[in-house]
Amino acid sequence: MKQLIKNVHILTMDEKWTEYQNGYLLIEDNQISQLGEMTDSLPQADRVIDGKKGILLPGMINTHTHTGMIPFRSLGDDVPDRLRRFLFPLEQVMTPELVRTSAEYAMAEMLLSGVTAFCDMYYFEDQVAQAAERMQVRALLGETIMDMATCDAKNAGEALAYCEQFIQKWQGHEMITPMIAPHAPNTNDLKTLEAIVKLSRKYHAPITMHVEEMTYEMEEFAKKHQQTPIAFLHGLGYFEQDFVMAHCIFMTEEDMALVEQYKEQVRVAHCIGANTKSAKGVAPVGDMLKHQITVGLGTDGPSSGNTLDLFTQMRMFANFHKTYLADRSAFPAREIVCLATAGGAKTLGLFDQVGSLEVGKQADLTLVETQSVNMFPIFDAYSALVYSASASNVSDVWVNGQQLVKEKQLVKKDVQALRTTLYQQMDRFVAEAKRKASEV
Amino acid sequence: MKQLIKNVHILTMDEKWTEYQNGYLLIEDNQISQLGEMTDSLPQADRVIDGKKGILLPGMINTHTHTGMIPFRSLGDDVPDRLRRFLFPLEQVMTPELVRTSAEYAMAEMLLSGVTAFCDMYYFEDQVAQAAERMQVRALLGETIMDMATCDAKNAGEALAYCEQFIQKWQGHEMITPMIAPHAPNTNDLKTLEAIVKLSRKYHAPITMHVEEMTYEMEEFAKKHQQTPIAFLHGLGYFEQDFVMAHCIFMTEEDMALVEQYKEQVRVAHCIGANTKSAKGVAPVGDMLKHQITVGLGTDGPSSGNTLDLFTQMRMFANFHKTYLADRSAFPAREIVCLATAGGAKTLGLFDQVGSLEVGKQADLTLVETQSVNMFPIFDAYSALVYSASASNVSDVWVNGQQLVKEKQLVKKDVQALRTTLYQQMDRFVAEAKRKASEV
Repeated sequence: MKQLIKNVHILTMDEKWTEYQNGYLLIEDNQISQLGEMTDSLPQADRVIDGKKGILLPGMINTHTHTGMIPFRSLGDDVPDRLRRFLFPLEQVMTPELVRTSAEYAMAEMLLSGVTAFCDMYYFEDQVAQAAERMQVRALLGETIMDMATCDAKNAGEALAYCEQFIQKWQGHEMITPMIAPHAPNTNDLKTLEAIVKLSRKYHAPITMHVEEMTYEMEEFAKKHQQTPIAFLHGLGYFEQDFVMAHCIFMTEEDMALVEQYKEQVRVAHCIGANTKSAKGVAPVGDMLKHQITVGLGTDGPSSGNTLDLFTQMRMFANFHKTYLADRSAFPAREIVCLATAGGAKTLGLFDQVGSLEVGKQADLTLVETQSVNMFPIFDAYSALVYSASASNVSDVWVNGQQLVKEKQLVKKDVQALRTTLYQQMDRFVAEAKRKASEV
Repeated sequence: MKQLIKNVHILTMDEKWTEYQNGYLLIEDNQISQLGEMTDSLPQADRVIDGKKGILLPGMINTHTHTGMIPFRSLGDDVPDRLRRFLFPLEQVMTPELVRTSAEYAMAEMLLSGVTAFCDMYYFEDQVAQAAERMQVRALLGETIMDMATCDAKNAGEALAYCEQFIQKWQGHEMITPMIAPHAPNTNDLKTLEAIVKLSRKYHAPITMHVEEMTYEMEEFAKKHQQTPIAFLHGLGYFEQDFVMAHCIFMTEEDMALVEQYKEQVRVAHCIGANTKSAKGVAPVGDMLKHQITVGLGTDGPSSGNTLDLFTQMRMFANFHKTYLADRSAFPAREIVCLATAGGAKTLGLFDQVGSLEVGKQADLTLVETQSVNMFPIFDAYSALVYSASASNVSDVWVNGQQLVKEKQLVKKDVQALRTTLYQQMDRFVAEAKRKASEV
């Protein structure tokens, strides 16, 4: 099957920043087989899609989220210590069905905003994997391990056992990579943290984890171990594994020098929207990049950042990091688009497959329309994506050569039906959430 | 003519934060005549609009923009000193026609994002007033006065003369208030700044001005006058006039104490998106509010903030001010929605007419749909508006009782036609812009 997309401004995000102002791209089965400026002799195709002067870029990559958490969105947003007051208690009433439907809904939302691959951590992660398979997206999925009773494990030991089964079941899948997702350095004891590294080694399974996100996490490690959490994890052997660290808000210069030595394996998922909404702070991404650390953008869960799209993140990234560095020319728009595409692919270890538009790569593509009122004029396409666009401008999306979004609608799923199912499954959750809210 | 909107969640933004979870609102001619929870005996109406469980709020108010500047959007975004390298030189090629079409386009964009009133400053402001009249929006419009040759005046004297005529022509208009818009304290000499106060007194015309936006402005005033620009303007009598100060990024405690004494006349238009995109900084709005200074949100021009909608501003406001204060509970969502509605109305001196949904006020209304994928679930409507929504969720808009947006489309205007006209008029501008860009 050959699909030809024509009449588009292509941002390849390759190493040379190649752009085709009025370009075409040919998808052959699941791969990109040709691309370039429009010519009179375009290749033959089974399907021809007119890009209507839109902007074609690699599918965007969300490096950190919790797709099971749609039910939490807009609950207790401005409440102090929401994690312990709302999130942990309410997670106890999550069911496998609720996680699966929530994950499908979140994937629908991500697809509609141009996200084609993501990294997730939550409970009942097998349900998330089933959802990802149904939704045909590319995903790295980590079962969460934590030293307390959760909705899918009485203790960390049970969670580890679940995780091992989960890895055995999904490893080798074309689109889904099972991971291990310890919640955080301070929410697991030493024994569990060591068992996780062991499990990761046994299956070559990547790890993802919240790291250096909390002030109290930093204080606890300074007091207990006279070390940063990053130095501590390094000591446990985490840096020899494929390791995606989310947040890293409080990363020190010493941490960065350490991570730099392991930069092939250890990368950072930066969630600027969620980090600043919760007033935690701005991770020193400029310094990380100076240390050649790989960074991608993440939305965090639908309750932490409230949106699952990377347009919101790109704009937040620009404004926060420019202001943080007191330099309007810092992080020009194209570098930010790079973080949302190629940077994300590198962070998740997917860059040999996706993250740039090049011949031989898998066809994960996002087409942004430029006809809506907010998208005029365009002197610079990167700038338009970062500063003018929103998720609502995404018009068409392909994953692995399959068109999953067409003219702003999901091709194979009905969002309203998903919403209805999810709402029905949320009965008990909503009752409990309202009870919690009334206590605040 | 009676219009009944039913089946909506009404956020009145009145002083008691009254909400109607499942409400109705009756518009009689141009006024709100009834509102409340749905009952079996709804009032009769000529037209009934089903709000489909959306969120109805007062029309949003953009307290600072430059509607003539659509042609500049996405040009030189990340370039240092863009004001002098791009904006000032290119403003020389602006024509009356270009300003008028740009302004119409910008008003279309604002309406589609739920903005029903705004405060503008630019050149050829009479053209902007004509555009506002055609678009039927509510506007405070200021002719810009600056000590250099501009596109509509050889010098400040000519600009003052234009401005006086402009005031004479538009004063007393039901929807349009002419203002005087000195560019900034440091771009006008003493004589001109004095003449402006005199003109304002003569016509009781309000003033709007960029104030304390630039580090070099602060340095210049410290050196030349041993005063802040705000203290200097106070000394010239500006604080006895109706005065909307845009930005105030570098407002000091002493400035605030001074403004507090004149808080009935002097208010602040806060443009968080533009201020942080250009790395200028975060205005101390928390402190301003402690001093009881009235604050509204503004987008700044389409080239400074790139968007003209207040959803982008509300989210930026939340994240920046929470982070700035290191407190996630600072500025809960409803206070931010208040800044975008009632706060804006108070800033522009319009609160007796609009800014809250109350019987007897003019019917300026924004209906936000809650069916799109990003708007589920909603535990808190304010939270959903600030953290989940974007301009694309605005479905219907009324100004002064007239429905101007219906199901996400302008009722009386064709955006594509406007865009085509604007693009044709931009010929010379685009050529000049490309020349400038090639010099960077």
